[in-house]
Amino acid sequence: MSLPSNCFYAQSGGVTAVINAAAAGVIETARQHSGRIGKVYAGRNGIIGALTEDLIDTSQESDAAIAALRHTPAGAFGSCRHKLKGFDKSQSADQTGEFERLIEVFKAHDIGYFFYNGGGDSADTCLKVSQLSEKLGYPLQAIHVPKTMDNDLPLTDCSPGFGSAAKYTAVSIREASFDLASMAKTSTKVFILEVMGRHAGWTAAAGGLAAEREGDGPQVILFPEITFDEQRFLARVDDSVRRHGWCTVVASEGVKNKDGQFLAEAGTRDAFGHAQLGGVAPLLARLVSERLQFKYHYAIADYLMRAARHIASRTDLEQSYAVGRAAVELALAGKSGVMVTIERLSEAPYRWTVGEAPLTKVANVEKKMPREYITEDGYHITAACRRYLTPLIDGEDYPPYRNGLPDYVRLENVAVPKRTSRSFELRK
Amino acid sequence: MSLPSNCFYAQSGGVTAVINAAAAGVIETARQHSGRIGKVYAGRNGIIGALTEDLIDTSQESDAAIAALRHTPAGAFGSCRHKLKGFDKSQSADQTGEFERLIEVFKAHDIGYFFYNGGGDSADTCLKVSQLSEKLGYPLQAIHVPKTMDNDLPLTDCSPGFGSAAKYTAVSIREASFDLASMAKTSTKVFILEVMGRHAGWTAAAGGLAAEREGDGPQVILFPEITFDEQRFLARVDDSVRRHGWCTVVASEGVKNKDGQFLAEAGTRDAFGHAQLGGVAPLLARLVSERLQFKYHYAIADYLMRAARHIASRTDLEQSYAVGRAAVELALAGKSGVMVTIERLSEAPYRWTVGEAPLTKVANVEKKMPREYITEDGYHITAACRRYLTPLIDGEDYPPYRNGLPDYVRLENVAVPKRTSRSFELRK
Repeated sequence: MSLPSNCFYAQSGGVTAVINAAAAGVIETARQHSGRIGKVYAGRNGIIGALTEDLIDTSQESDAAIAALRHTPAGAFGSCRHKLKGFDKSQSADQTGEFERLIEVFKAHDIGYFFYNGGGDSADTCLKVSQLSEKLGYPLQAIHVPKTMDNDLPLTDCSPGFGSAAKYTAVSIREASFDLASMAKTSTKVFILEVMGRHAGWTAAAGGLAAEREGDGPQVILFPEITFDEQRFLARVDDSVRRHGWCTVVASEGVKNKDGQFLAEAGTRDAFGHAQLGGVAPLLARLVSERLQFKYHYAIADYLMRAARHIASRTDLEQSYAVGRAAVELALAGKSGVMVTIERLSEAPYRWTVGEAPLTKVANVEKKMPREYITEDGYHITAACRRYLTPLIDGEDYPPYRNGLPDYVRLENVAVPKRTSRSFELRK
Repeated sequence: MSLPSNCFYAQSGGVTAVINAAAAGVIETARQHSGRIGKVYAGRNGIIGALTEDLIDTSQESDAAIAALRHTPAGAFGSCRHKLKGFDKSQSADQTGEFERLIEVFKAHDIGYFFYNGGGDSADTCLKVSQLSEKLGYPLQAIHVPKTMDNDLPLTDCSPGFGSAAKYTAVSIREASFDLASMAKTSTKVFILEVMGRHAGWTAAAGGLAAEREGDGPQVILFPEITFDEQRFLARVDDSVRRHGWCTVVASEGVKNKDGQFLAEAGTRDAFGHAQLGGVAPLLARLVSERLQFKYHYAIADYLMRAARHIASRTDLEQSYAVGRAAVELALAGKSGVMVTIERLSEAPYRWTVGEAPLTKVANVEKKMPREYITEDGYHITAACRRYLTPLIDGEDYPPYRNGLPDYVRLENVAVPKRTSRSFELRK
C-alpha cells in the first residue's frame, strides 16, 4: 500500500489580514485526514518555492502554531509576485520550462494536491496547472483558494481578505470624521483618506458604510469607476463644509481623469523633472487648499489597511478559514480545476456557505463595482451597496496581545530536504 | 442658602482617542457631588464657546450618553485652536477684552470651577485664568486636565492621549512589517510609516516597541531630535535589506536636516513653484528608490493615529478618565492653578497614581525625548525607553460595535440660554 499523497500550498500576490486563516484551514483539515493526505508542504515565497524546490514542511509546526495563523496577518510562508510564463497563448508548449519544473518538483515530493491561495492571476496559474499536469505525465488535483483585498474575483459573492480591508477603511474614516468634526470650527475643514484598490472601487465604497445618518462622514467618495471632475468635486466639498462645517473624503488610489490617466500619475513634475510622488490624496488636498482655501489633512492607508489584523472582520476571517478547509474537502472529493466560492444564502439575517466554480470561468475575469452600487451623482454608495457590504465587515475577532501588542506567530518554516538533482534559475 | 457653583469644561487643541474619557471623568464625578457642584457646562468648540457664550448643558445628557464618552474618540463638545491673547507679556492688562469677556460669561452662569482639557498652550491659558479671575473681581478655581498625543507636557510621567497614539503606531508598524516580510522576495523591500509629532519623537519612538527580537521591524526610526543624514540613513536601510530582505521605517513628520529645516518643507517645488506636499515619507521613499533601487511603499497616519479609539490603550484610557475625575476632586479640595499629573509608582509591575503640579511650572515647558532613550546610532530606542513606554500602551479597551462599526456616541449638545446682553466678536 502506497503512502497518501502530499499537498502543496502556496500564497500568491498581495497578502491580506486573513490569508493565513486560509492556510490554517488547509493545514488543519489535512491533518484531520491523515489517512488520505500526507504532509502539507508550503512554497517558501509562494510559487517560487516550488520552482526552486524550497519547500516548507508544515508538519513540523505545532497545532498551536497553526491555530495561531488564524490571528496572524500577512503571508506566514512568504508570498510573491511571479506569474508563470511557461505557456504561450495556445497553451500548447512550455517555452521556459517553468511548468515542467513544477511537475518535476511535485513528482519528487509525491505532491498530489495543489492549493493555490491568491487572486485573479493566480487562478489562471492554478487552471493551467490543472490542465497541464496530466499532459506532463503527473496528474494533480489543483484547487484555487480565493484571496484578494480588492474583491474583484468573479463567481464568488466576495473575496476573503476584502471584508477586513473594508472594515479598516470604514472604521478609520469614521474615526477621522469624528476628529475633524471636533476641530473644524477653527482648524482643519477637509480630510482625505487615500485607500488602495487601483482598478475597482470596492474598498473605497466600504468607507461609505461609516456614513449612516445625515451629516456623517465621509461626505464624498471618489471611485476609479467614476471619471474625476475637478469642478464638481470642489463644489461637493464646498457644499459639505458650508452645510456641516467640514468634509471627509475617501479617495481610491485608482481615480482617473477624463483621459483615463490615473490622477496620481497625471500630476505635475517637480523641479528636477521627477514625477510627483504621494498619490492622489496630496493632489486633492492641494486643490482644496488652493481653490477653496480650506485647511486640510490627509492620510494614506497603503499596506496598513490590508495588514490590519487587529481590526479584522470576523465574517471575513471565518470565510477565509472556510475556503481553506473546503479546498481540502473538494480535493478529497476528487475535484480539480475549481475555485472555492462564497455563496450568499440570505441577506437579513446574513447567511452564507461555500461553493465551487470552474477555473475556466474565473481566470482573467475581473468583478467591477456595479454602477447601481454608486449613487447617481457618483460620490457615494447606494442602499443596495450598503446591503451587500454590511455583513462583510460584521463582527470582530481580536488577536491575543502581549506587552500591549498583538502576539502574532512566526512559524519555524523548516525546509524539506531537496530531492531533485538540479537547481532552477528564475527568469527575471 | 445659595445654589452650588457650576463648572465650565472645555477641550482645547488637537483631540485624541481618549480626551472624551476625561470629559466623562469630570462630568460623572461632578454628578456624584451634586450637593457641592451645580451643572457642568461645556464650551462648544472649546474656549470659543465661553467667549461667545455658546455653552452646552451637559446635565441634559443621560448617564448612558456620558458613560459612552469613554469609548468615543475626538472632542464631543468640539475643540479649537484659539490661544487667548488678552494679556501682554507682563500679564498686567487685558488688551483685547478676551479675559474680561470670559469672566463676564462665567459670572452670568455662576461658574465657580474652570476645567481646561488640553496641552501646553492650554496650561498657560488655565494659569492666566487662575491668576486673573480674582483681579477681575470673580474668583474661579482653575484646574488643568492634561491631554496631548505628543507626550510633551512636563511634570507628569505621561500625557493622556499619548498612550493610544503610541499603541496605534506600534501595532501598525508591526502589521506592516509582517506584510513586508511576506512580499520582499519579489516585490516591495522598504516600507515607511510617517507619524505625527512635529517637535518631539515620542510617537515615533513608540513604533520601536514593535521590534522585540532580532529581525523584527521597524529597523529604522527617524526622530526630530536627531539630524537627518542622508548617507547614513541609506546605508542603514541598505544594510537591513541585505541582512533581512526588507526594512520598515517609522519617520516622524518633524525630521529635520542639518540646517534645522523640516525635511518635508526643505523639499523641492513642482513645476508651478508650489512647495511639494506629502510630508517626509514620500521624500524618503524617493531617496530609497533612486539611490538604492528598492521598491517601496509608504503610509501616512495623520489623524488616524490620534483618532484610533478602536485600538486605544487601556492604560491611557484609564489615566484620561482619572485626570478628569481628579480635577473635580482637587477643585472640591479647594485647589486652583494646578494641573493633574500621572505619577509612576513602580515599573514592574507598573503602578501609577494621580498627583498635581503647579501651573506656574507647567506653562511653556516642553518635555523632550531624553537622549538616553535613543540608541547611540540615532536610529532606534534603548531598553530604558522601552521600559518607559511599554506600560503606556498596555491593555485594550474595545468600543461596542454595531453593523460592524464602532458605536460612538453623539451627544445632544443642548445650548444653555444666553444671559449676557452683548455678543462678542472673536479676533481672527
